[in-house]
Amino acid sequence: MNLLARAEQSLASCFEAAIGSGSAPPRLVAAMRHAVFSGGARIRPQLTLSVAIACGDDQPGLANAAGSALELMHCASLVHDDMPAFDDADIRRGRPTVHKAFGEPLALLAGDALIVMAYQVLLNTGHAFPARLIGLMQNMSAGVGLPNGIVAGQAWECEPRADLGQYQRAKTGALFVAATCAGALAAGRDARPWVTLGASLGEAYQVADDIRDVMGLSADLGKPAGQDQLHTRPSAASELGLGGAVDYFQGLIQTAVDSVPACTCRDMLQQLVRHESERLVPSAACAAYRLPNAMPNTAPKFQAATVLQT
Amino acid sequence: MNLLARAEQSLASCFEAAIGSGSAPPRLVAAMRHAVFSGGARIRPQLTLSVAIACGDDQPGLANAAGSALELMHCASLVHDDMPAFDDADIRRGRPTVHKAFGEPLALLAGDALIVMAYQVLLNTGHAFPARLIGLMQNMSAGVGLPNGIVAGQAWECEPRADLGQYQRAKTGALFVAATCAGALAAGRDARPWVTLGASLGEAYQVADDIRDVMGLSADLGKPAGQDQLHTRPSAASELGLGGAVDYFQGLIQTAVDSVPACTCRDMLQQLVRHESERLVPSAACAAYRLPNAMPNTAPKFQAATVLQT
Repeated sequence: MNLLARAEQSLASCFEAAIGSGSAPPRLVAAMRHAVFSGGARIRPQLTLSVAIACGDDQPGLANAAGSALELMHCASLVHDDMPAFDDADIRRGRPTVHKAFGEPLALLAGDALIVMAYQVLLNTGHAFPARLIGLMQNMSAGVGLPNGIVAGQAWECEPRADLGQYQRAKTGALFVAATCAGALAAGRDARPWVTLGASLGEAYQVADDIRDVMGLSADLGKPAGQDQLHTRPSAASELGLGGAVDYFQGLIQTAVDSVPACTCRDMLQQLVRHESERLVPSAACAAYRLPNAMPNTAPKFQAATVLQT
Repeated sequence: MNLLARAEQSLASCFEAAIGSGSAPPRLVAAMRHAVFSGGARIRPQLTLSVAIACGDDQPGLANAAGSALELMHCASLVHDDMPAFDDADIRRGRPTVHKAFGEPLALLAGDALIVMAYQVLLNTGHAFPARLIGLMQNMSAGVGLPNGIVAGQAWECEPRADLGQYQRAKTGALFVAATCAGALAAGRDARPWVTLGASLGEAYQVADDIRDVMGLSADLGKPAGQDQLHTRPSAASELGLGGAVDYFQGLIQTAVDSVPACTCRDMLQQLVRHESERLVPSAACAAYRLPNAMPNTAPKFQAATVLQT
């Protein structure tokens, strides 16, 4: 089975098990399903599974649960980020966002319930492996909560001053680090050699998102473009210029490729990273933006002078 | 040290430890502090500590963490419930609600971060006691998540049909059951003998809240009265009439008192329950509402005929 199919099947099976006895409020369950099963790329669980395989994958069910739990956290964050208090987005992955389809109260609750479900999914499989479970729970909590998880990342948008590097590491990088580390932890291995892969890939995703937002690749994104400028968010594309952001993106991908520790699956993992890089920011587009004076005058300049770059 | 002081000190200490290295976004941390340290009665952690003491309290640090984690979940639910998507409340415990003081984006994130922090607090102390930790995490997840936790309880308000009993058990009862069970689990004991205490006390709190909402005890509540009618919520006071609701409340308190298992602290626990009962719905007020024809004609009748009572 390929990684995407394994990730998708695990997620469906973990989700159904966690829903429980069938007595949950049906519209809440429908809103959660809408949030989770809507054609996501499943990058985070695929990363978890890749690293688990590279580490021996001696408990595949635990790796499946770990990847699924992180994807549930990711989906929860998208539901809340799309709400009127943040992006006020009508469309996500080409479909109505959860609050558009089910209303704001259920969107708020669906996000909350998905956060708790992520822990339930870990517990449901992990209780038989207490030491690994505790590591996985600490790892997931660090990826989501304070001080440097994705919730903190989102919150940097509400601060009068923010460090661009810290913001990006938290907003996207933290859950990617959690994803690679979870693969190692599920297989009973040391997570530390896998931090750089998650961190550089996570930052690359964030930078790619910034680039695509400026390039207006709205249809590809399945969501409205120009959101960063609209919400005056810290953005690598605005900070470095589009050409600079593309260079930075490609450097991060190279760092990710180089960071893969020696293991039987090293080639496969490196290929996966390069493949994702091409999917995110096609190299043809990169080349065009590297030409002298290719930076369009109309490209939005980042407005918040108080955001520092490190 | 009395229970309230122990609960309050534990919460402060667990909160600070979970905030971490000091690099978290300061306004998010301030919003979380505002949500948590605002004069709450700390009923849930006091219940946890009471039961832990009744069960020997051989790991007081773990009982402290378990009670604090549940209080963080309670605070998270209040932050999200107060938001415009639900109650649109300006005041909570006599102070501005989190979204009024910090804006909707930070209120949304503060709630999310508090949910994760609850798990972090359990992990920070519980990792040294894996078997108890896993039980505590399952217990807390059941109290908050699907199928019957407080998030599900809140979601029943968004359903076209709801069972009043299931709604009340989930909306308030679930976290009270989690609170009594957590005390036993933290002390390494069987949680089952403590379910009825939590369930009946939780339902009593919900019924008391309904009664107080109708009686218009706004100043005492520290929040606006009349919210149930305003939001056409299922309510025992509307369903049973005020006199019936008062009788039902007192029956629940008696069930709670009778349910306390034999232990050295039985008298103390029963007294605590009776004391809370008096604080919630003063018996003088109960007596007045039991007089024939005391039910005011102006008392709101519950509008949603589709809500069934069990």
